[in-house]
Amino acid sequence: MKLTKIKDEIRAIGIDDAPFIPHTKGKTRVFGVITRGNQNIEGIEQVKIEIDGTDATEKLAEMIRTSKHYGQIRVIMLNGITFGGFNIVDIDELAKLTDLPTISVIDTNPNFDSIKIALQKHFEDWETRWDVFTRVRIEQVTIKSNSKPLFFHYSVGDLTADIIKQIFIKTSQRSNSPECIRIAHMIGASFLSKKNI
Amino acid sequence: MKLTKIKDEIRAIGIDDAPFIPHTKGKTRVFGVITRGNQNIEGIEQVKIEIDGTDATEKLAEMIRTSKHYGQIRVIMLNGITFGGFNIVDIDELAKLTDLPTISVIDTNPNFDSIKIALQKHFEDWETRWDVFTRVRIEQVTIKSNSKPLFFHYSVGDLTADIIKQIFIKTSQRSNSPECIRIAHMIGASFLSKKNI
Repeated sequence: MKLTKIKDEIRAIGIDDAPFIPHTKGKTRVFGVITRGNQNIEGIEQVKIEIDGTDATEKLAEMIRTSKHYGQIRVIMLNGITFGGFNIVDIDELAKLTDLPTISVIDTNPNFDSIKIALQKHFEDWETRWDVFTRVRIEQVTIKSNSKPLFFHYSVGDLTADIIKQIFIKTSQRSNSPECIRIAHMIGASFLSKKNI
Repeated sequence: MKLTKIKDEIRAIGIDDAPFIPHTKGKTRVFGVITRGNQNIEGIEQVKIEIDGTDATEKLAEMIRTSKHYGQIRVIMLNGITFGGFNIVDIDELAKLTDLPTISVIDTNPNFDSIKIALQKHFEDWETRWDVFTRVRIEQVTIKSNSKPLFFHYSVGDLTADIIKQIFIKTSQRSNSPECIRIAHMIGASFLSKKNI
């Protein structure tokens, strides 16, 4: 789906995961919050993915496609690119599976060298996992004159830095973060207390 | 804490639980969403309570009192009065433990006879559980002329139907439900798919 003009009331889904106890196996939860514009929350979805697994792309696509809000959603925004540890989202593949432009928002430029070393150390299939990182394109956008720039990866040829800036402006309040990501992050963070994991 | 005038930007915490597989033992999650006015989400808390247990009042009080938003919250709004099955919240006790006015919002007048029968059938300590129901005061409020009335229990002597109507008006958008309860309910409902419980 091509995005050219961004409506004030654009529907977006923002995605973030719940933390888990480090060095455990099993699954963790990922939340998707659907917003309209920069304040109305229209839905909340969740799905479980394998910790350090390889199913994040497929599970997120399933969560989004089976949402009753799927027909209204115009853009996917991920908080980062890895969920449940090193379960990496292939944003090009997610965009293809959902037919939706997909953006991964990060707040600092990633250190690719250290990511590669960590993957080599921990995973036999590190080359497949690393492949996603070789394909990402990173851009930098300044939304407000006094705010830090946001870095992001994006997918789907039609997305440009200018379109993404418009999306950010129309989906965020005072925070630098789109509301849908901010709230998905807060839901995930509520699991942080050890007794809740 | 006494509530007399309700500010437009009043902070409220809305509380609802996640569903669980019926007839299971163990714990379920309860979520608390902190809003300012009728649109700004400022925080999300969670706590686990025993399914059909008796710890809901104490655990909710702990969740609220340990929240970093505790000092700003002016009112507690519960979606109903039982969480995690028949884990009943004693709203007078919750109000006392948190020093905050507490409202339980329900959308139909409860059938007390059938609640009593269910408690007698399932719990040896049914009299203790039933005691909470003998102390609730139920009021009915119509917020918008064309909407169904809301029924609610409330706690703390200072709360009146008029004050509660003001709270409802200032904390809800188009829905009849205060935003904090609506979102806590949506987070809980995202657990509904069996694969997510």
